[in-house]
Amino acid sequence: MRMYDLIVKKKKGLELSGDEIAFMIAEYTNDNIPDYQMSAMTMAICFNGMSREETYELTEAMAKSGEMLDLSMIKGPTVDKHSTGGVGDKTSLALGPMAAACGVKVAKMSGAGLGHTGGTTDKLKSIRGFRTDISTSEFIDNVNRIGIAIMGQTKNLAPADKKLYALRDVTATVDSIPLIASSIMSKKLAAGAKSIVLDVKTGSGAFMKNKDDALKLAGEMVEIGKRGNRNTIAVITNMDEPLGYMVGNALEFKEAIDTLRGNGPSDFTRLCYTLGSYMLVAGGISKSREEALEKLENAVTTGAALDKLAEFVEAQGGDREYIYNTELLPKAHIIKEVKSHQSGCVQRIACDEVGMCSLVLGGGRLTKESEIDLSVGLELKAKVGDYINEGDTLAIIHANDEDELKEAALRLIGAYTIGEEKVNKSDVIIGAVD
Amino acid sequence: MRMYDLIVKKKKGLELSGDEIAFMIAEYTNDNIPDYQMSAMTMAICFNGMSREETYELTEAMAKSGEMLDLSMIKGPTVDKHSTGGVGDKTSLALGPMAAACGVKVAKMSGAGLGHTGGTTDKLKSIRGFRTDISTSEFIDNVNRIGIAIMGQTKNLAPADKKLYALRDVTATVDSIPLIASSIMSKKLAAGAKSIVLDVKTGSGAFMKNKDDALKLAGEMVEIGKRGNRNTIAVITNMDEPLGYMVGNALEFKEAIDTLRGNGPSDFTRLCYTLGSYMLVAGGISKSREEALEKLENAVTTGAALDKLAEFVEAQGGDREYIYNTELLPKAHIIKEVKSHQSGCVQRIACDEVGMCSLVLGGGRLTKESEIDLSVGLELKAKVGDYINEGDTLAIIHANDEDELKEAALRLIGAYTIGEEKVNKSDVIIGAVD
Repeated sequence: MRMYDLIVKKKKGLELSGDEIAFMIAEYTNDNIPDYQMSAMTMAICFNGMSREETYELTEAMAKSGEMLDLSMIKGPTVDKHSTGGVGDKTSLALGPMAAACGVKVAKMSGAGLGHTGGTTDKLKSIRGFRTDISTSEFIDNVNRIGIAIMGQTKNLAPADKKLYALRDVTATVDSIPLIASSIMSKKLAAGAKSIVLDVKTGSGAFMKNKDDALKLAGEMVEIGKRGNRNTIAVITNMDEPLGYMVGNALEFKEAIDTLRGNGPSDFTRLCYTLGSYMLVAGGISKSREEALEKLENAVTTGAALDKLAEFVEAQGGDREYIYNTELLPKAHIIKEVKSHQSGCVQRIACDEVGMCSLVLGGGRLTKESEIDLSVGLELKAKVGDYINEGDTLAIIHANDEDELKEAALRLIGAYTIGEEKVNKSDVIIGAVD
Repeated sequence: MRMYDLIVKKKKGLELSGDEIAFMIAEYTNDNIPDYQMSAMTMAICFNGMSREETYELTEAMAKSGEMLDLSMIKGPTVDKHSTGGVGDKTSLALGPMAAACGVKVAKMSGAGLGHTGGTTDKLKSIRGFRTDISTSEFIDNVNRIGIAIMGQTKNLAPADKKLYALRDVTATVDSIPLIASSIMSKKLAAGAKSIVLDVKTGSGAFMKNKDDALKLAGEMVEIGKRGNRNTIAVITNMDEPLGYMVGNALEFKEAIDTLRGNGPSDFTRLCYTLGSYMLVAGGISKSREEALEKLENAVTTGAALDKLAEFVEAQGGDREYIYNTELLPKAHIIKEVKSHQSGCVQRIACDEVGMCSLVLGGGRLTKESEIDLSVGLELKAKVGDYINEGDTLAIIHANDEDELKEAALRLIGAYTIGEEKVNKSDVIIGAVD
């Protein structure tokens, strides 16, 4: 078999066989296929696509390129949740403990990633002492005992995906739905959970700008999950404005805690309950989503979900006091209100610009080596559909540097479009694919 | 400027500017753009094509990546001839002296190339003492004095094309008409001739299998030539069967000499006269093609063309006796007739298979390091449209190894399709684009 012939085949629009894809991924991982051939292949895939069979074979080959986590020692239903990412997305922090409090076994690996804020593992570091570098056996023990553990992604999880993604990133071949679907799902298959609930975001702040693409991606991922014998469902959710009000690491942690107390923003609370209800049904804990919703609401009102967060944090070396007293979370030195120059209804909030504010303040990573400032970020005070008057506060900025503050404030004002037209609030949940 | 953004642009089907293409080629030649980005670009070009403006800019950038030959010291009209290649193509050997005998200044650089036989410079090595490694000043002196010189391609001729072609060759991105056109024309622009006559071959034995593609390629190249201020014309010619009867290095040289004596095969003779007439008109030597044809025929019948070959060979260190006594050319040890097993009319000759026979016998190069055996090859005895009887000779094989002979004989028989239907001989000249 020769990579050259596989490129020719894909370029002609023919289907690659499972053996051919397995060969390609194994040899690429072993550095026997050069990057210049693989990038010609990924570009041809961008133009000619992949069949569902090919997409599955690619996913499986990448999943098997490294360690496949064995979660068979965990008693109870393992359900993984994955979000395609957006601004203000702190879902894992609230949903994980909620679902665990209801009996789901949440064994989550989380990548650090680049972006306007850190990943879930970064946000967890807002808690003094919290460790994400736990061993696999500690991870499995904790899930069995508490119902939830979150660790950093092991280096050997789907290494083929890591190598291929780095190449796609510099050759303008990221935006192919089969390649995106197989990249995400290879890590989910390797991470071992029996059920997978996917949160596919769409809108100006999401990677999938339009709903049709989000639906296609969701369909591809659900199909891969099913072929891989995982109970898989995808929920399409709105990312046309930031999720909740908080953007930043410690600030998002605080909002997640508020939500577990029953005081969270309505969009974020609805998202957690909806995704949670699918997790409970997928895991066989509830027979219907209605039953599941009741269970989740109960876990919040009784305080069981919040206690589960405290228990989980403590098990990974963190100070459980932080959960009950959010004043302990890292705080920025400068807290400044940004006022509106106009009266009217918020028409739009440019999500990407809000993300940039967080990045400018030091809350995110531009390169893998960047240090994250956990304390900085934004508290939005107005969202789409809200009426505001001139002089009202649009947002509160938490900063540690005056220049950064100024730049973030300017960007924030620019991110808001305020006008006379009445705009309805949109539902965070758009649909589901299973 | 970033290569990444240029890939995105081309992938979206947008046009690259001249500055962008110049940047891309300069930085790629200097190893500042990695192969994996360039192969993603060439694959995107295979799908989205290039405008004529882009194709010209690419050609010019590649031509300028190395030395641009200055032929201004040559007195008289410099006309270059280029063939896209086929089986039995010995045109330069006969046409060069013919055109030079009529007053054209033939300053030809010829690449060695891979293929079923060697290139023009290899074939010339059939003459004892002949040197292709002459200096540029010797080259120009000879053209001024004799009217013709042929040298190996200098290492610094369009190095960007050399690097890019090697990459395209291993990434399945050769078959893009703008990329083929710019590759050929970059070397022609750098080689300095004022006029260019292109022989674009089409058919089973050519790179362009169908006439429409050949016409497209011809149109692209003529356009590039004109934009580059070169008087350019392309002739579309038939390569559905080998050209003439001889395939092999010394054998083709012999057929070229026969043609200069007026005893050449009709298809090959017609091709040389036709291309020659365009060269004479392009160079301003003749006012019409009719006048040019008369001049060329006269150069052959008077022996002036053959004498010009002898003069040229001698000027580059070769033994002129070889031209008048072809018995001196390298000879193979085994000469064997291959007989037909059938009676009927030759319907088709699989050109590529005939080329493979020559390669099997050792007449061509598989890799740049391969040694060529100049003495081996084939003399075809029947061409398309000829009637033959069972037991008639199809071809005579010249070999130096019994095993190679056997394989070549089997392949040769397989290359012929003989049937009852009458097949007309087709004209070697299909059309012209100017």
